Amino acid sequence: MKKMDYQNVRGTQDYLPEQEVVRRKIQRTLEDTFIAYGCKPLETPILNYTDLMASKYAGGAEILQEIYTLTDRGERDLALRYDLTIPFAKVVAMNPTISMPFKRYEIGKVFRDGPIKAGRFREFTQCDVDIVGVESQAAEAELMMMAVDAFKKLDVTITIQYNNRKLLYGLLQTFEVPEAQMNRVILILDKMEKIERATLVKELTELGLSEKSLQDIVQFLDARPTLKYFKSFVSKNEFVSQGLQELTELADYLFTLGIEKQCVFNPFLARGLEIYTGTIYEIFLADGMIKSSIGSGGRYDNAIGGLLGTNDSFATVGISFGLDVIYTAFELTGKAEKRESDIDIYIIPIRTEKEALVLATALRNEGNRVEVELSGKKVRKAMDKANREDIQKTIVLGENEVTANRYKMKDMNSGEEQLFNFVFDK
Amino acid sequence: MKKMDYQNVRGTQDYLPEQEVVRRKIQRTLEDTFIAYGCKPLETPILNYTDLMASKYAGGAEILQEIYTLTDRGERDLALRYDLTIPFAKVVAMNPTISMPFKRYEIGKVFRDGPIKAGRFREFTQCDVDIVGVESQAAEAELMMMAVDAFKKLDVTITIQYNNRKLLYGLLQTFEVPEAQMNRVILILDKMEKIERATLVKELTELGLSEKSLQDIVQFLDARPTLKYFKSFVSKNEFVSQGLQELTELADYLFTLGIEKQCVFNPFLARGLEIYTGTIYEIFLADGMIKSSIGSGGRYDNAIGGLLGTNDSFATVGISFGLDVIYTAFELTGKAEKRESDIDIYIIPIRTEKEALVLATALRNEGNRVEVELSGKKVRKAMDKANREDIQKTIVLGENEVTANRYKMKDMNSGEEQLFNFVFDK
Repeated sequence: MKKMDYQNVRGTQDYLPEQEVVRRKIQRTLEDTFIAYGCKPLETPILNYTDLMASKYAGGAEILQEIYTLTDRGERDLALRYDLTIPFAKVVAMNPTISMPFKRYEIGKVFRDGPIKAGRFREFTQCDVDIVGVESQAAEAELMMMAVDAFKKLDVTITIQYNNRKLLYGLLQTFEVPEAQMNRVILILDKMEKIERATLVKELTELGLSEKSLQDIVQFLDARPTLKYFKSFVSKNEFVSQGLQELTELADYLFTLGIEKQCVFNPFLARGLEIYTGTIYEIFLADGMIKSSIGSGGRYDNAIGGLLGTNDSFATVGISFGLDVIYTAFELTGKAEKRESDIDIYIIPIRTEKEALVLATALRNEGNRVEVELSGKKVRKAMDKANREDIQKTIVLGENEVTANRYKMKDMNSGEEQLFNFVFDK
Repeated sequence: MKKMDYQNVRGTQDYLPEQEVVRRKIQRTLEDTFIAYGCKPLETPILNYTDLMASKYAGGAEILQEIYTLTDRGERDLALRYDLTIPFAKVVAMNPTISMPFKRYEIGKVFRDGPIKAGRFREFTQCDVDIVGVESQAAEAELMMMAVDAFKKLDVTITIQYNNRKLLYGLLQTFEVPEAQMNRVILILDKMEKIERATLVKELTELGLSEKSLQDIVQFLDARPTLKYFKSFVSKNEFVSQGLQELTELADYLFTLGIEKQCVFNPFLARGLEIYTGTIYEIFLADGMIKSSIGSGGRYDNAIGGLLGTNDSFATVGISFGLDVIYTAFELTGKAEKRESDIDIYIIPIRTEKEALVLATALRNEGNRVEVELSGKKVRKAMDKANREDIQKTIVLGENEVTANRYKMKDMNSGEEQLFNFVFDK
């Protein structure tokens, strides 16, 4: 027989039970938090028309290169979704009678054929919340509060950096950066904390900006600006004015909610995606153990209207948590290891498999998680397994027990045995 | 602006919150049942090498035509998984130190570019349990018991049809059906309950079997055989003998577990997939409202050894539940409609958004699911929403309440209001 090629595709991986148990706990904590915030579940397909995925209201040029595409038997051009945002926008566009505000969560796999680094894969799980129908910064504040809440439950200390796209955009307008260059400048500034200052300036210079623009930007970089810095630009530019007003409103919410210390204004934060129109935020581990963000989001008021082909603005805010990168953080900090057994009671039959299954059913009906040893392990080997897997209670079931209609349950910690009656012989 | 193509791909669909809430309940019931049976979670990638998916130890020729394939940027030939069984076998093959018996569950999306009918989609969710390392029929019995248990919790009455591949295979050997024709004959017999008898015989005739073979098969069809029928073939064929022994052992287990009435022997049941080597079963709605099976599985002892390229037999049994077809059954029987609100408390602020968010946080910390009205709905419209969505408790929060540091919670059923103190003004 030919040996099959049974490795995993680069950028994908299996999660074995020890890992998956932890991942499912993280996922359930996030989901329960979403539900506590009044979010409702949605499920969208992974397979989509390439046209939809490549829409300019979607991820933009950078993501376009990373889309997995395929053709089905009906010769349709399909693509695997690369996020849960566009599918969400599609659902809102497709269902005009949906009741607003619409606040949904979705947890599912997304795919990007891009570079791989720590905590970043080609196939990964996102846990997203999006709200359509709320114009005020209360929506952003609630999502940031939700993030703080979720990570508190997960016992992970985070920092949320936030900014407003209007602020940066407006400021660059006053610096006379041409519209055509705007997005590339913003993408370079976004790397402020990740790359050397000299490299940053070099990249800016290569864009061929005017002397004035370049000088103004460099001055801005050096200013390490707080919100106050922008006040002098308010009278000069409508976007700065609006952005600052929104940021002030948001900061006020964060203060009232008592999370102003975890949430930090970062004037250089831009987020790669062109989709965003207002507030943006990224979540980082407070200890900086992973450089990538473990969650992010923002306001994108034009996407749904864009998909609909109308000029209507749909007030929309979202946040996305990366399950795989959060799990990686758990692994790095040793939190992934602490865990209890998944089995409450382990029944070891000695030629009593049938009766053991009957007893297991009764114990399961009482709410226990029960495993019956069915592979013929000898008692000693089975006990080794019980110890290794930290199972709390075991029952050795021999023919004597069945005849006598009773069995002993052993507490593996104390070694104590308790006798129970059970009618095996009906 | 150009209107985007925002429809769903044929064979895929969105599940809106009303639907998805029910689906998640079904999924959680299945998952909790799996856990109660000592199964551990596994997660495998959707993207796989085409080589693996097309392995002859996998789904066989019929499924091969339905695989979605694609090429990534690194020119790798990839395929979307079409079931969770081969990924499971791959994991066992890749991890030789895994502790046996290995009993895992996986819930995830699978993809088949095939025909669509009621409850059958091109992208759908399977909920699978597989056990490797148990040779006795106890494994099959436990999985069938688990299925009965799970559907009892879901309040769905099911029938499980079962058979053994050895029985049919051995019987056809005694009918002198040539090895090369064997699988096609079995696939035709499998349609016994779905197509006209005349069509069935016509299909068999077209295979060009010998007169004797054809006559024997037709006689078998007419016999409506029970287990006893096969006894006369035991001395003539080793496969019939083994198959009958396994079936008798299984029937004995089912009787002891008290599920012999829900589990019915069907001598024509074959299951399309060539992967199976012994017991096979399919789960049907007892009321026959959906003709397709809502779950199925069986023993496939050769798949893992085949993937490993050795002749080792890995005793392996699995069962698979189709979430989408189960949900379709819920929809058809009206069970999908009964549901409670996902919100416990709905706070309606009147120019008190900030304080409402603070109160919401406190109420969530007490375990409530809380929604704050942030879209500026007037009280009357908000109350309409509360009634429409059957929300049990509402709080109207005005500036007076905030100043007085107290609020009223209204029970929407009784209309009663209760007063609570809360420090808004810190």
